[in-house]
Amino acid sequence: MTNSVPSSGSEADVAPLGNASTAERYADLPFLPNGGVASAKGFKACGIHAGFRADPKRLDFALVAADQPAACAAVFTTNVFCSAPVTVSKERLGGVGYGTVRAVAINSGIANAATGDKGLDTARQSSAIVADALGCPAEEVLVASTGVIGQHLQMEPFETGSEKAVSTLSSAGGHDAACAIMTTDTHPKEYAVSFSGSGIGYEGCSFTVGGMAKGSGMIMPNMATMISVITTDAPIAANDLHTALKAAVDMSFNKITVDSDTSTNDSCFLLASGEAAKPSAAYMVPGTPAFSAFEHALRTVCIALARTMATDGEGATRLITVNVAGAKTVEDADAAARTVANSPLVKTAIYGHDANWGRIAAALGRSGAAFDQESVGIDIMGLPVCRQGLTVPFDEEEALRRFESPDVVIDINLGAGDEATTMWTCDFSHEYVTINGDYRS
Amino acid sequence: MTNSVPSSGSEADVAPLGNASTAERYADLPFLPNGGVASAKGFKACGIHAGFRADPKRLDFALVAADQPAACAAVFTTNVFCSAPVTVSKERLGGVGYGTVRAVAINSGIANAATGDKGLDTARQSSAIVADALGCPAEEVLVASTGVIGQHLQMEPFETGSEKAVSTLSSAGGHDAACAIMTTDTHPKEYAVSFSGSGIGYEGCSFTVGGMAKGSGMIMPNMATMISVITTDAPIAANDLHTALKAAVDMSFNKITVDSDTSTNDSCFLLASGEAAKPSAAYMVPGTPAFSAFEHALRTVCIALARTMATDGEGATRLITVNVAGAKTVEDADAAARTVANSPLVKTAIYGHDANWGRIAAALGRSGAAFDQESVGIDIMGLPVCRQGLTVPFDEEEALRRFESPDVVIDINLGAGDEATTMWTCDFSHEYVTINGDYRS
Repeated sequence: MTNSVPSSGSEADVAPLGNASTAERYADLPFLPNGGVASAKGFKACGIHAGFRADPKRLDFALVAADQPAACAAVFTTNVFCSAPVTVSKERLGGVGYGTVRAVAINSGIANAATGDKGLDTARQSSAIVADALGCPAEEVLVASTGVIGQHLQMEPFETGSEKAVSTLSSAGGHDAACAIMTTDTHPKEYAVSFSGSGIGYEGCSFTVGGMAKGSGMIMPNMATMISVITTDAPIAANDLHTALKAAVDMSFNKITVDSDTSTNDSCFLLASGEAAKPSAAYMVPGTPAFSAFEHALRTVCIALARTMATDGEGATRLITVNVAGAKTVEDADAAARTVANSPLVKTAIYGHDANWGRIAAALGRSGAAFDQESVGIDIMGLPVCRQGLTVPFDEEEALRRFESPDVVIDINLGAGDEATTMWTCDFSHEYVTINGDYRS
Repeated sequence: MTNSVPSSGSEADVAPLGNASTAERYADLPFLPNGGVASAKGFKACGIHAGFRADPKRLDFALVAADQPAACAAVFTTNVFCSAPVTVSKERLGGVGYGTVRAVAINSGIANAATGDKGLDTARQSSAIVADALGCPAEEVLVASTGVIGQHLQMEPFETGSEKAVSTLSSAGGHDAACAIMTTDTHPKEYAVSFSGSGIGYEGCSFTVGGMAKGSGMIMPNMATMISVITTDAPIAANDLHTALKAAVDMSFNKITVDSDTSTNDSCFLLASGEAAKPSAAYMVPGTPAFSAFEHALRTVCIALARTMATDGEGATRLITVNVAGAKTVEDADAAARTVANSPLVKTAIYGHDANWGRIAAALGRSGAAFDQESVGIDIMGLPVCRQGLTVPFDEEEALRRFESPDVVIDINLGAGDEATTMWTCDFSHEYVTINGDYRS
């Protein structure tokens, strides 16, 4: 009974911290029914069984294609052990992370990581095969792979599957594409939102941002890694797309953790067709209301995809949202939230329905963030459990009731400044150990 | 079957990396039978039931006392949420980390952490009560606590227990002291070694370094934290003791991880009586063979205690030794070894007897250490599994046989330089989740 000693007043005295999560700041745009990676005008998608997997019922090849060459930006894993398709897609974008492309081709089953020069040849060849089928230069096809590492990817499924994939492309194919990139995911992940161009210089236009994602955390070679493809029909120049994507990824995919930060294959692609801006095709300019509206929609989709990835972490029973406020710097906010979200002790406590603020405090204390323990406040699921670094008595039965929710929120105020952030993770269960420990044995 | 693709030759072609662990460099001094914290001349110890715990059969109060005021050095947790006894012991050592003391008093059951000003008063008062019983100034008694956080430590057990503890002190009391500081530990941890003064300026003398430790990793408030007391009868000045202790801790206690780095209460004390140097009481001087012999003995004891702590991690079934060589810098070596040792995916793979080098590679790749993936070699239990960043085929049955050992060694060569280090951790089991997740629920 760790938290049973009265020390700073009764429950009734203490107001919740009331931190706002990043998701709450991006909650105003409704998600489109059945929205996904092919919702934006100018894009088609498909998911087929090409033969990367043995099971003929399992979709294993996704293609997202633009009707015309489209602006594209991408961000990739920073892991030194990056996979061959990551290296090749970076090459295709000329090393700057943006350019013009026609398609992104993704296989699941084999990651083509730790495969040396032969793996690089395979990745280059596969994009050429897909490009042939699409009738575009190889340079305009980006590739991504997810699955087992250390094995070589076969060319046959690309050779036999590419024509079939191209002929299957449709604006209704987003869902199959989202299914085809799944590995240990328990469900496909796809979201889309729309925003009006009226009042922001694109009267009568309606723009859409939609995307799909798979995997969460570095769970190689149990075949989960993070891959996401997002499309929009807003008119955005490739370099501005890159800036917007990096900012959106920083507050979404870079703020989730299942058990570490980056895998060998993590890739996030963003394509813009500009098709919804017709007849005016003028680019949205950074700093204008139009560009801000696009950024807002992009972040909304990225945050929704990221949260779903954290919820679907291996063995997860609960999404954990860690809201840190009162940090001295942005870096401190991130370090504090990340250390709490990565703590196996916090994650097992949540799994065990234990409102154990001591483990949260200990993680904060070793995070490197600057603060005084006398200034710290912590709420768990809206229940104040710590103020001024001391225990606040709380109703344990009420806490257990709130733990029934699949969505557990931890609010922290460091009392050291004005910076805030949100991280998402999942709890740490017996099932996690089973999934990751019983592999092969 | 992750590692089944031939890529760089058959097993027979590949020699093991043959990295040496830090422990192997400190394996020449035999441990004294029944050696512990009271093995060195000039020290006595005891462990009694003072009443911090409800169970009268459970020892809960340890006292280590020098016959005369002794040189002392200490290192403490860097966690911002440090406990009251840490703050008070730091005060007692004048803020420099070394000084002259008579005793270290340790209670288990309550950590006296997150207890504010009242907790500080309690810690100060408790050291004064013990000092009264010993007949020395309060400034000469250091304190440490381990157990539940957020609860206040009662004074009664100190008041009723201190006289009893002082009267129980004996040179055979080290074992009881080691038992009294246990929390979730499954066994007491104590080691001692001796080295001869002959040939190093202390002819006919024999010096002893012995110590005890408890807990491993930050497992608050499941009542495990790291506390260690080490004594020696070598004649060492307090400031030199501090330098030697910091170096020894850096290669031992700071190189183990169960689930994080520092708890609220981590403390390591080193006391030197000089009693074995009589009649010559000349201090051993840093840089001389005598001081080097002392440092070697100290490191031997610290490494043995640290390894035992990692082996006894909550739910652990195996000790994991991570030997990194070929790092560009000392910091890179540490980052690489630490990231591998902290990886839940590596720890669950070892639990599942899976020689899964991909998870090790992924941890290395995100560690921040500088290297090229084409230069990396990895052995698991002496079996080469990766060379030049590529899979090496190995005998899976032989790997499963080697996993029967309670001691799993991972050798890594980054191929980027000459620096090396060793980290110790334990595997991640269902039992870990049960211990940490089922608490209170």
